[in-house]
Amino acid sequence: MSSSRRLEELIEALRCLPGVGARTAQRMAHHLLERNRDGGRRLAQRLAEAMDGIGNCARCRNFSDTELCSVCTNASRDASLLCVVEMPADQVAIEQATGYRGRYFVLQGRLSPLDGLGPRELGLDLLTERLAEGEVRELIIATNPTVEGEATAHYLAQLARQHGVRPSRLAHGVPLGGELEYIDRGTLAHAFGARQDAG
Amino acid sequence: MSSSRRLEELIEALRCLPGVGARTAQRMAHHLLERNRDGGRRLAQRLAEAMDGIGNCARCRNFSDTELCSVCTNASRDASLLCVVEMPADQVAIEQATGYRGRYFVLQGRLSPLDGLGPRELGLDLLTERLAEGEVRELIIATNPTVEGEATAHYLAQLARQHGVRPSRLAHGVPLGGELEYIDRGTLAHAFGARQDAG
Repeated sequence: MSSSRRLEELIEALRCLPGVGARTAQRMAHHLLERNRDGGRRLAQRLAEAMDGIGNCARCRNFSDTELCSVCTNASRDASLLCVVEMPADQVAIEQATGYRGRYFVLQGRLSPLDGLGPRELGLDLLTERLAEGEVRELIIATNPTVEGEATAHYLAQLARQHGVRPSRLAHGVPLGGELEYIDRGTLAHAFGARQDAG
Repeated sequence: MSSSRRLEELIEALRCLPGVGARTAQRMAHHLLERNRDGGRRLAQRLAEAMDGIGNCARCRNFSDTELCSVCTNASRDASLLCVVEMPADQVAIEQATGYRGRYFVLQGRLSPLDGLGPRELGLDLLTERLAEGEVRELIIATNPTVEGEATAHYLAQLARQHGVRPSRLAHGVPLGGELEYIDRGTLAHAFGARQDAG
């Protein structure tokens, strides 16, 4: 028996967060109540603002507070480079790791007919318009190296060629800092076959 | 560069949750935005309600929506048994694991002079009043088996005796399902010394 109905409801609501089960939710609720009510209030407000105020950019489909996101409206970005990613988190990873200064297009998924995800659901009509504008010269295809990601990449490469745009893909190979002994066979075979002259 | 300021603020606010770092916060925010905005809205509302609406029971100091919590006002609970725990989570654990039908007192801490936690901060004046009422016959001391928890237990046992109330403590020993080889020496020595006749 719990001493507070509101506490029970909070614990239940916290379980909508990924990776949060009953025990973690309880720990989170107690932590906020005991030590950080201001943090909890701020989180409540920002959650409400985000859930209702964040939509998708009309140009690149990434999360955006406004009709066009801040990356799409940034004039210092190179409009001749367009990098296609599956999810917003992929865009964040590329942005943090690389010095890329071009633009993005976010599929919000990957081609997956069994899940009802076709070209329309991924906004490829929008991407086609974009390629037809003639400003993009290179389409950097950064889908995940999974079966569905590869199929999507293949489709996107064809689309690019149809519009006279050069498609490119991220290089596959041995990750930096990895040990050969522990790298999966497929990656190792690929890296071996695609070996390059030592510099 | 992020595409949404509201998203950045949500990610920062999520880090007030225990065990949530930058990457987990990002994953949580993206998950809610992509798949469960209703869950996010409900969480926002319940957080706000909990942070402002949950106080402490005037009688047992546990979390409560009202002046007296539902355990303290439950007439079917045995008022002659009072179990003292450090934190609300301890009350939940006992409630879930045992068939205990008495009442609770929640210290919201343990005696820790270096942290400025003395008898006053733990509400021991309230507990003293309670013991003086004469209704409690057994004080079950369920503080944690740490140095500070043991010191608190010692203090509470003296307090109980001063009011003619019998103090009791949880049994120490080998946990069920534990393997002797891996149990800490202190516990094993205690369990060995406190051995009982085989039934």
